[in-house]
Amino acid sequence: MHFTSEQRFDDGVLEREFTLGEIPGILWTPGSVSAPAPLILLGHPPLGLRRMYPRLVARARHAAADGFATATIELPGSGDRPRWPAVEQARADLRRAMEAGEPVGDEIVDALVLPLVDKAVPEWQAALDALLTLPDIGGPVAYSGGVISIGVRLAVVEPRISAAVLFAGSFVPRSMFEEARQVTIPLHVLLQWDDEGNDRQAALDLFDAFGSKEKSLHANMGGHTGVPQFAGDAAAQFFTRHLK
Amino acid sequence: MHFTSEQRFDDGVLEREFTLGEIPGILWTPGSVSAPAPLILLGHPPLGLRRMYPRLVARARHAAADGFATATIELPGSGDRPRWPAVEQARADLRRAMEAGEPVGDEIVDALVLPLVDKAVPEWQAALDALLTLPDIGGPVAYSGGVISIGVRLAVVEPRISAAVLFAGSFVPRSMFEEARQVTIPLHVLLQWDDEGNDRQAALDLFDAFGSKEKSLHANMGGHTGVPQFAGDAAAQFFTRHLK
Repeated sequence: MHFTSEQRFDDGVLEREFTLGEIPGILWTPGSVSAPAPLILLGHPPLGLRRMYPRLVARARHAAADGFATATIELPGSGDRPRWPAVEQARADLRRAMEAGEPVGDEIVDALVLPLVDKAVPEWQAALDALLTLPDIGGPVAYSGGVISIGVRLAVVEPRISAAVLFAGSFVPRSMFEEARQVTIPLHVLLQWDDEGNDRQAALDLFDAFGSKEKSLHANMGGHTGVPQFAGDAAAQFFTRHLK
Repeated sequence: MHFTSEQRFDDGVLEREFTLGEIPGILWTPGSVSAPAPLILLGHPPLGLRRMYPRLVARARHAAADGFATATIELPGSGDRPRWPAVEQARADLRRAMEAGEPVGDEIVDALVLPLVDKAVPEWQAALDALLTLPDIGGPVAYSGGVISIGVRLAVVEPRISAAVLFAGSFVPRSMFEEARQVTIPLHVLLQWDDEGNDRQAALDLFDAFGSKEKSLHANMGGHTGVPQFAGDAAAQFFTRHLK
């Protein structure tokens, strides 16, 4: 893990860009902490870190105000990372089906999501290995955001993840429902009720499938990026309950 | 409105029992307030105020700590009020259907809920008239709790109700979905995901039907009375956002 640049915001939050092998990432740490800060991994859709940056830095600074460090990495095939023809093909197939008003078949969803999960999850784990060696980062660790299937897989395979805020805003492969049953950590699931790009019933079914004893579904009005301020605050309170 | 007894708790909250004609009720006001307190009407299932008292007083004292007055009245046919043979018959029919494992038909739900809504809503409005004449009670006013159909009807017909926390834990007559479309006030809907006595799909459909621009669904694990502490806190924050 190599830090490539850093800047400090006026709220004291330190932002450091890093690379982990070929993978770019960003780490944000609170301005003043007495002990190593709990860490939240900031998930995001595969649109590239640069495009996601304004939303990520807002979440990071909100979390820092609550005493949390946050980190994110570029997803495979996104941003400045090498293109990934198979996933791009699946995206083209998805677009074509949606523009034609056709139902999005299981094979498109699987081709779109499963390779991404298979590749991204070990990368998140490698990032976690590296981040936890830093003196200002401690446990516990949480995952926050989309792609929801990445969050589900991480919750199953990565025992250092002790809680997750999952954003139900992407297609979910059928096999993921089976993985969801194996999740036991506390979950806070955000669902935008009128999200055009989201299958509401699939999100409800996935919520139902989670094996966690503590799971909450928070559905709000508005489209994909319209999560209201108070819903963000509630997610922050979930982290404060579970990471402190 | 006649006050029949009063006691002050060690947190300063003043509890006053009252009667409004033949209807018993309870008013709780915060210990120290500089201005007239916003009012939350505490809805509850038709099990009688005495049986509901422990849960009601806990909600009242929680609300008082946030600066809210709360009040509740006995529902028609419940507690010490005259028995209501038609509704008791509907309850017996419901029990019989559930014990036989039969689906609960629309006619049972209608007979169980609609007369209660028709009679209880004007009583809540009369209580509101009386409560708002008290010097320590001001606007705005909210409704909180079940019977959800009472909350829906109140939200439609009573313009003084400016926000509601609704508890999706009772049968919903089909005609109520049409009324739900006419609701426009901010809503915070609590759903116990595994509530045995609740039709989850009906609750989701009702949430979808509400016409409100701001509506949030908060689903949590556990049975009918198992609403977790943090979900109560989130409902309290909803009131603070909308009544202050």
